Amino acid sequence: MAYIELNNKMPGIAGLLQYRPETAKPLSELAEILLRGPSSLSSGEREMIASYVSYRNKCHFCHTSHGAAAAHHFDGDLSLIDDIKNNFKKTEISPKLRSLLDIAAKVQQSGNDVKESDIDAARNNGASDREIHDAVLIAAAFCMYNRYVDGLGTWAPEEKEAYDESGKRLAHEGYLSINS
Amino acid sequence: MAYIELNNKMPGIAGLLQYRPETAKPLSELAEILLRGPSSLSSGEREMIASYVSYRNKCHFCHTSHGAAAAHHFDGDLSLIDDIKNNFKKTEISPKLRSLLDIAAKVQQSGNDVKESDIDAARNNGASDREIHDAVLIAAAFCMYNRYVDGLGTWAPEEKEAYDESGKRLAHEGYLSINS
Repeated sequence: MAYIELNNKMPGIAGLLQYRPETAKPLSELAEILLRGPSSLSSGEREMIASYVSYRNKCHFCHTSHGAAAAHHFDGDLSLIDDIKNNFKKTEISPKLRSLLDIAAKVQQSGNDVKESDIDAARNNGASDREIHDAVLIAAAFCMYNRYVDGLGTWAPEEKEAYDESGKRLAHEGYLSINS
Repeated sequence: MAYIELNNKMPGIAGLLQYRPETAKPLSELAEILLRGPSSLSSGEREMIASYVSYRNKCHFCHTSHGAAAAHHFDGDLSLIDDIKNNFKKTEISPKLRSLLDIAAKVQQSGNDVKESDIDAARNNGASDREIHDAVLIAAAFCMYNRYVDGLGTWAPEEKEAYDESGKRLAHEGYLSINS
């Protein structure tokens, strides 16, 4: 159970969004725009950034949820979550996504860790300014969501299979109905 | 100048909000609700949490802006920023706010650092569940804003006096017009 009385039994961020609908609205809208809004990055790529940052922040609920969502943007194969979790550096991805993930990993530590040379490397791998912007903001936003979920001690299912259905829903229906 | 071409000369997050209005909307709404919406914590107390977390994240633009906003919720005395910056542990605040700041400092490191005993300490100092929730989310949100501002290398005025006018505007007019 969470550290505070949420008056609902929903896991992870879902219980928090239900508890405080006023903040749930912008939090859900931000996730929807960043992960599913119009972008030259695919939703699968953006979910991988979200899951990777969440994994680095040791937020089990978020990295498993967004790993499942990423998997459903590809072919529904949940082994992708294990790749992200255990062996991310070797997961087969484009050089552009790799350099955006490198930036995301720095943002996860501190915004001040990102250097001009990281941006140049992403540009050299084909990333546009907008893609760099969105990768930084996705990484930053998950530093928020992760801390929100864990800082209030919410509960989360352990097994990745428990996230399959919600991952499918996040991938195909999105974040705006998360609280309804 | 920022790492990406923002097509405007505004400092800190203001330049980013102008660059990407779609994400600016939920980002601004979240700040408005958390820092100025209905709450049993005063806006001054909430701005202090925001400034303190931003200071710990070494985000000069954010900690100085929100320090100035906090000052304008009290008496406009900018020395409050220096207190927050140099000597926070000795700044004269209520035991309740002190224990919410202790939680915020843990959230700044990692959500997983917050323990049941931290929540108990805040409750013993009179904090309600809603106040604890909001303190955690303010701290988490500034871990996002700080990384967004610094991860994209935005520029920021050095001297705290340069933040006085904007602090006054944030305190009295809020965050929804930040991008207009």
